[in-house]
Amino acid sequence: MAVELLGVAGLPEIRPGDDLAALILAAARLDAGSIVAVAQKIVSKAEGAVVDLRSVEPSARAAGWARRWKKDPRLIELVLRESRRIVKMERGVIISQTLHGFVTANAGVDWSNTGGEHLATILPRDPDASARRLKQTLGCGAVIITDTFGRPWRQGLVNVAIGVAGLEPLEDLRGQRDRNGRPLQSTLLAVADELAAAAGLIMRKTAGAPVVVIRGWDWKPAEGSAGALIRPPDQDLFR
Amino acid sequence: MAVELLGVAGLPEIRPGDDLAALILAAARLDAGSIVAVAQKIVSKAEGAVVDLRSVEPSARAAGWARRWKKDPRLIELVLRESRRIVKMERGVIISQTLHGFVTANAGVDWSNTGGEHLATILPRDPDASARRLKQTLGCGAVIITDTFGRPWRQGLVNVAIGVAGLEPLEDLRGQRDRNGRPLQSTLLAVADELAAAAGLIMRKTAGAPVVVIRGWDWKPAEGSAGALIRPPDQDLFR
Repeated sequence: MAVELLGVAGLPEIRPGDDLAALILAAARLDAGSIVAVAQKIVSKAEGAVVDLRSVEPSARAAGWARRWKKDPRLIELVLRESRRIVKMERGVIISQTLHGFVTANAGVDWSNTGGEHLATILPRDPDASARRLKQTLGCGAVIITDTFGRPWRQGLVNVAIGVAGLEPLEDLRGQRDRNGRPLQSTLLAVADELAAAAGLIMRKTAGAPVVVIRGWDWKPAEGSAGALIRPPDQDLFR
Repeated sequence: MAVELLGVAGLPEIRPGDDLAALILAAARLDAGSIVAVAQKIVSKAEGAVVDLRSVEPSARAAGWARRWKKDPRLIELVLRESRRIVKMERGVIISQTLHGFVTANAGVDWSNTGGEHLATILPRDPDASARRLKQTLGCGAVIITDTFGRPWRQGLVNVAIGVAGLEPLEDLRGQRDRNGRPLQSTLLAVADELAAAAGLIMRKTAGAPVVVIRGWDWKPAEGSAGALIRPPDQDLFR
């Protein structure tokens, strides 16, 4: 089996209100066998999930934390607003659960390459809906919205899926048996995260290839939701 | 940029003592631009990191836990022996830090597709050394030994790198700036884990493609060690 990962070249800098799907269509050749991975930042920009920090009034909590750790209090305020729950707030680092339920640093608030020095991007309100809309216009087989997340235990960031359309993010092997007839031990593969990570190899951080087309990978079309990738806390023994 | 992931077909069932590198060489076309991802299980099998459970004498602790959760006490004993530290031992699940320092379920002990119903595989003693030996014989650019790990916060398993040779597992963007001249926020990308995840798309669990060749991805040759992917506990705010 051969899978191909293709960075889409020639996309312009995305701005609020841009028709992202049309811009991707103009730059890439897609078909029903294509999975399109799109970096969260350009989805947020196109959808206007961009905040002018001059409009953000920091709370006392944000201001205090920002002073202590030499951060921009407006950014801290934005991180707190985008958080459902704080996991850790230590040594200037905020790890929280976003309004969607994902656990990441700074609740996905980003202030690099946002298109202006007063601008920060936040995660799309409903990344699955963003993926569905893109998929519909693109006419491809599936869409994955990706973001780079840190993880416990392991060093470094990896790209994961925060929105999906057209596939189940988890491949469930329950009931399957190994070649000795024993039930398989580990039965749930996070294929959407593996697709996101594969795309991340090409997106990288500075390379400016925020859209990657994946061809040649077999999957069963399904509606799907990245919410399935959020581990229920009562089943989380890994922490 | 186009990256190609190719599953290597036609490998026989690997047995202790097999010359894995020779078998891969016979089945795949490789060059200095190729990264070869190899599933841990066949590395363990070839190296003889296979334990006959009939030779394992369970400790009282292993026997008690196994009785309580209806597990094979010899497997539990093996998991405990392969663990440097237990992270969680609850509801029949053991999450621990392996002797190498990786955090995973069952310390990487595996009893599916091991080649015999009394056999379990354990992780290679020194997966970086395994990767280096393979790389030398294969004459490829880099080798990654992969295993499927569960993670906190997120559902499902993903393939990660437990051994590397020929590349730095972390790509360090420290000092680089965004297009507005601001320092990049997140500066360490776990590229070896993204390569492992990409390969995992093809390996899958039952597909029987334990070797994947990655072509067309740019990297700077380096010695590398998967140990760099272990997050120092005092820097781990993600838990």
